[in-house]
Amino acid sequence: MLTVLSVAEAKEKILTAVLARTEQEPVLLTAATGRTLAQPVAAEEDLPSFARSTMDGFAVRAQDTYGASEAMPALFDVKGEILMGQAPEVALALGQVLRISTGGMLPADSDAVAMVEHTEMLGGNIMALSIPVAPGENIIVRGEDLRAGEGILSPGHVLRPQDIGILAALGQMRVTVAKKPRVAIFSTGDELVMPDAVPKAGQIRDINSYMLSSWVESCGAVADLRGIIPDNKDALMAVLQRTGAYDCVILSGGSSAGARDYTAACIDELGKPGVLFHGVSMRPGKPLIFGVVNGRPYFGLSGNPTSAMVGFLLLVRPLLWQMQGATELLPLLRAKVERNLSSASGREDFVRASLYVQGDELWARPILGQANLVSTVVRGNAMLRIPQNCEGVEAGESVEILLI
Amino acid sequence: MLTVLSVAEAKEKILTAVLARTEQEPVLLTAATGRTLAQPVAAEEDLPSFARSTMDGFAVRAQDTYGASEAMPALFDVKGEILMGQAPEVALALGQVLRISTGGMLPADSDAVAMVEHTEMLGGNIMALSIPVAPGENIIVRGEDLRAGEGILSPGHVLRPQDIGILAALGQMRVTVAKKPRVAIFSTGDELVMPDAVPKAGQIRDINSYMLSSWVESCGAVADLRGIIPDNKDALMAVLQRTGAYDCVILSGGSSAGARDYTAACIDELGKPGVLFHGVSMRPGKPLIFGVVNGRPYFGLSGNPTSAMVGFLLLVRPLLWQMQGATELLPLLRAKVERNLSSASGREDFVRASLYVQGDELWARPILGQANLVSTVVRGNAMLRIPQNCEGVEAGESVEILLI
Repeated sequence: MLTVLSVAEAKEKILTAVLARTEQEPVLLTAATGRTLAQPVAAEEDLPSFARSTMDGFAVRAQDTYGASEAMPALFDVKGEILMGQAPEVALALGQVLRISTGGMLPADSDAVAMVEHTEMLGGNIMALSIPVAPGENIIVRGEDLRAGEGILSPGHVLRPQDIGILAALGQMRVTVAKKPRVAIFSTGDELVMPDAVPKAGQIRDINSYMLSSWVESCGAVADLRGIIPDNKDALMAVLQRTGAYDCVILSGGSSAGARDYTAACIDELGKPGVLFHGVSMRPGKPLIFGVVNGRPYFGLSGNPTSAMVGFLLLVRPLLWQMQGATELLPLLRAKVERNLSSASGREDFVRASLYVQGDELWARPILGQANLVSTVVRGNAMLRIPQNCEGVEAGESVEILLI
Repeated sequence: MLTVLSVAEAKEKILTAVLARTEQEPVLLTAATGRTLAQPVAAEEDLPSFARSTMDGFAVRAQDTYGASEAMPALFDVKGEILMGQAPEVALALGQVLRISTGGMLPADSDAVAMVEHTEMLGGNIMALSIPVAPGENIIVRGEDLRAGEGILSPGHVLRPQDIGILAALGQMRVTVAKKPRVAIFSTGDELVMPDAVPKAGQIRDINSYMLSSWVESCGAVADLRGIIPDNKDALMAVLQRTGAYDCVILSGGSSAGARDYTAACIDELGKPGVLFHGVSMRPGKPLIFGVVNGRPYFGLSGNPTSAMVGFLLLVRPLLWQMQGATELLPLLRAKVERNLSSASGREDFVRASLYVQGDELWARPILGQANLVSTVVRGNAMLRIPQNCEGVEAGESVEILLI
């Protein structure tokens, strides 16, 4: 039996034992949301590539507007209109302006836009401006958004809608992203039947395969549901020997007392280095097995769905993100706990809770009931963390929150 | 020109003007994550359907264990082992126990499990127990997770991985969910070219179609990128007349001064009731048009990507969730603002920001730069809200956060 590690030690051991995968693939921009960027993105040219108006009005030379006031408007000759999407064909001479719309291209010599609200047409193409305009006012200059060569997104960034927008702005219709890790998911246990079966006395339906698949897909990986393995060492060994095509293997369950030992023994027999640890000082989820064989990570999670979920979120999810070259982006969330909670010092406790807002504050109401009840994680929307060297938290104390 | 509404008034108007869609479809459980439940989910039978052990140990009758202690252990005859997935064939007589594993089915007459850690085998199938066990200890009773008929998930709930787990537990391999709303997305503007084109002077690439599609898909809807419409009333009208197959239509842009008026005029010409409002007292995103024709919502968002994004998040997204029968689930997030920010009273201001944790607190660092710069929403991860009747916020003040 190997030593029980703290959650932080276990996470560190997992993340250093498995190398980041370097496989990449191009995807269409329209399919890139949520994928992890594998190459840096920089502007190839200035963005925008020309000075643009940010208002409807008149392209002016700012120096011509000095001194304009309500009492003594400056008068200009409107030489024409700048059409959207076209380069203005005339330059401005002294006392001349051109009509321009938001997004229009400024003509040569123009360095500002007078807002239409500050102008009045007097007839005969004469425009009166009632306030002065400063150079650069109501325009974006060339390269103000991004300069040629300037970086905007780095490898490891998980693409959001606005990132898709800037990639479109830069003309990148294909993006190079990390390949999705392929994850094999097995449930083990003689008591398990498929969800579409009617369980006989003593049998229950397989929950973990389905729940864990959903979690796996939520962190950018592909889940392959490989079904139920009986509590039998030979069956487990045969299955593990056919996992060479996966980037990660997740087993959960192994419900009889002996089966949990098979899991570790089978991972050790499968190859080197084998099991790296067995047990993490957390509740729920303590009896977690982690091993590596031929560079491939193997997790043995608890059969209890809540425990399996906590083990997945704390220790498998960071690895799946790392495999994509990404740093896991956890929402930085804290809440005040509604009532005192005790905890055994020496382990991290994760308590199911419901979050709610009261005034300006986020509060967490702990949900009672055994960790073995699936319904409690369905009724809650968070887990609150009681740190390892802490004998509990008091009502009103601020705690870390893991959204579920 | 219709009155400018507050954000809350605009949202209320939108959500009451468009009926929730009632179309439903069955999906496989493995494809149901993120979909909105359309039917209530209740347990058809007790879950679990039999009393189960939550520990490895011995199924006992609690009353037989009273008085057991380290000094004077209670002795039992081990009658055999309960196999996983099977109903125990023997009942317990006085002084008898059965070995049981976590998840095993309790025999008739047994009402508790003695943990293996508190027992010792003495040989000849005699087990010594060193502490008493209370009735119900280390077991889950039948129906403790869910009782037959008890509801667990309601229509409108957006399915998470743990919900997928409980649906598996209940044997529901298919789930009835709301159909995904189909959303048509158009960008309008003579200056726009497709992202794979090389813009000429005065032209820019279409950003909004791609960014908005990604946002639309992120809230459970299907985005159909319908391309670029020139700034021309006939072209816009022709396009709008072919939107009958969609549940929602989003236009953005209309860059020339006149084109913004066409958009409203075309929606009015398309049918009744037409435009319901034009303008919302917020920045950015003020010139937002909302109309309804034949029950179908039409949004005219700004051409500026940041403004379009704010308009989408505040006013389109809640409707797309409502169409699925869901209440929008916004993360309930507040942060302290790093420095003083001024704001014009009478409008809501949304300021781009970067969130970070300092000590136990979440802080927001405002990002400077014009709203017209796409790069600022890429560099930030949040928008902070300055309420309408507020002339600004002071450094250290707590503000509402919209994650982006």
